[in-house]
Amino acid sequence: MNAIDDIVTAALLVIGDEILSGRTKDKNIGYIAEYCTNIGVDLREVRVVPDIEREIVDAVNALRERYDYVFTTGGIGPTHDDITADSVAKAFGVGIDVDERVLAIMRERFRPEDINEARLRMARIPFGAELVENSYNKVPGFWIGNVIVMAGVPVIMQAMLDGVAPKLRTGAKILSTTIRADMREGDIGAPLAAVAKAHPGVMIGSYPYWDEQGRPNANLIVRSRDEAAMNAAAEGVRRMLEDMRAKP
Amino acid sequence: MNAIDDIVTAALLVIGDEILSGRTKDKNIGYIAEYCTNIGVDLREVRVVPDIEREIVDAVNALRERYDYVFTTGGIGPTHDDITADSVAKAFGVGIDVDERVLAIMRERFRPEDINEARLRMARIPFGAELVENSYNKVPGFWIGNVIVMAGVPVIMQAMLDGVAPKLRTGAKILSTTIRADMREGDIGAPLAAVAKAHPGVMIGSYPYWDEQGRPNANLIVRSRDEAAMNAAAEGVRRMLEDMRAKP
Repeated sequence: MNAIDDIVTAALLVIGDEILSGRTKDKNIGYIAEYCTNIGVDLREVRVVPDIEREIVDAVNALRERYDYVFTTGGIGPTHDDITADSVAKAFGVGIDVDERVLAIMRERFRPEDINEARLRMARIPFGAELVENSYNKVPGFWIGNVIVMAGVPVIMQAMLDGVAPKLRTGAKILSTTIRADMREGDIGAPLAAVAKAHPGVMIGSYPYWDEQGRPNANLIVRSRDEAAMNAAAEGVRRMLEDMRAKP
Repeated sequence: MNAIDDIVTAALLVIGDEILSGRTKDKNIGYIAEYCTNIGVDLREVRVVPDIEREIVDAVNALRERYDYVFTTGGIGPTHDDITADSVAKAFGVGIDVDERVLAIMRERFRPEDINEARLRMARIPFGAELVENSYNKVPGFWIGNVIVMAGVPVIMQAMLDGVAPKLRTGAKILSTTIRADMREGDIGAPLAAVAKAHPGVMIGSYPYWDEQGRPNANLIVRSRDEAAMNAAAEGVRRMLEDMRAKP
C-alpha cells in the first residue's frame, strides 16, 4: 500500500516511421497508458519520433531527465532500420555490443545457422543494461538507467511489459469514477466548473459522446489518489446533475 | 505538382488526460498521419500531453518553432477542463476573448437560451486567429500562426481537417511501394541492409507480421519522393528476394 502522495511518473517514446506515415496504426499507446494506470504509474507524456538517431537520442534524453521511467517501443528488430538500441546507448554515452546473455537465449531458440548477422543485431545491448524478459518469443528487451526498451509488435511489447512491471517502483493508483451525465456538455459546463472548483485536489473531466440513442451525452470522470476525496467530488457531481434535472 | 525537394513538415499535439490514463484510446494520430501523407505533408513528430496549461504552452512553442505546421487535437469543448484555446493564446503571447464570428455561427445553431457561459467557452478564440470550418456541427476550430487547433472527437476533428487542408501549403508526396517478403525478417536483414545502402535517397523499412497462415513474414516498404528512385530500389529489393529464394 502506497501513501497517496507517492507518485511515480513515466513517459512513452514510440519509435517508427510507419506510425508517422500512418501506414501502421499504433496500438501500444492506449495499452501502455491503461497498464500504467492499473499498476500505479502516471503516464505523463507520449512522443512519437521517426527512425532517425538524432531524434531518438534527443527524445530519450529529454524524457529520462523529466520522468521516473521512460518506456520505448519499436526499432529493436533484426533489420537496418532498427536503430533503437544503438540510439539509446548513444543517449547514455555508453558502448554497445552483442550481449552474451542474449546470445545464450538465442542459441536456445534458433538453429546455429540462423544466428546470422541480422539476428545478432537483436543481441546488441548497451553496456550496463539489464535484460527485459520476453515470454512470447524469448528475444529480450532491455533496461538501462530509467529507460525500458521494448519491441513495437504489440504482442511482444505486452510480454515485455509483463516481464518488467513487477520490478517497477509504483505509486498510489489514481482511482476514478464515471458518472453518465444524460445531459449535453454545454448545458452542464458552468455548474460542473463550480463542483471542480469546490474539490481542488480532484480531477474532473468531461468527455462528450453520442449515446446508444444517438443523443449527445457526456461521461464525467472524477479522478483522485484519495478515495474519500474522489467520493466526495463524485457526490457533488451527482447532486449537481440532480439539481439541474429538477429545474423547470 | 511540387518539386521533389519541396518538403512541408508537421507535428501533432494530442491534448488530454483521458488519452494518458488509457481511458480513451486515441484514434486521431493514425488518421492525421495518413491524411498528411496523402496530401504531401510530412508528419515528423507526435506528442501527447495532459490538460495542464504549462505542458500545452511548452509543447506548442517547442513544436511550432521546429515544424511548418502544428496540429492540435482536444480541449476545445465547453467544460472547465477544456483549456487548449487559452493555452495556445498564452503560447503566442496574445489575448483571447469571445469571438464575434464564432458567436454568429453559434446563433445559427443554438437557441438563444442555450448560448450559456459554458458554450461561450467554445467561442473563445485567440486574437488574430483564423477560424477553421467545421461542417459536422459548425462550431469551428482556429488557426493562429502555424498552429491549427482542432477538436478531439474524431468525427469533428476530421471535419475540421477537411476544412483546413485545402489551405495548407503542401510538398511533394512521399510515394511508397510494399513488397511482401514471404521470408522472415531475420533471414533477410543483411542483404536488405545492402540494398538500402545502395539506394541512399530511399527509405526502406521492414515490418514483421504473422501472415494468414500464421507464419512470420515481413512487409518491406520502399519510400521516396522520387518515383524513379523508388522503383529502382523496389526492383533491388525484389531481386534480392529472388536471389535468396534461389539459394539451396
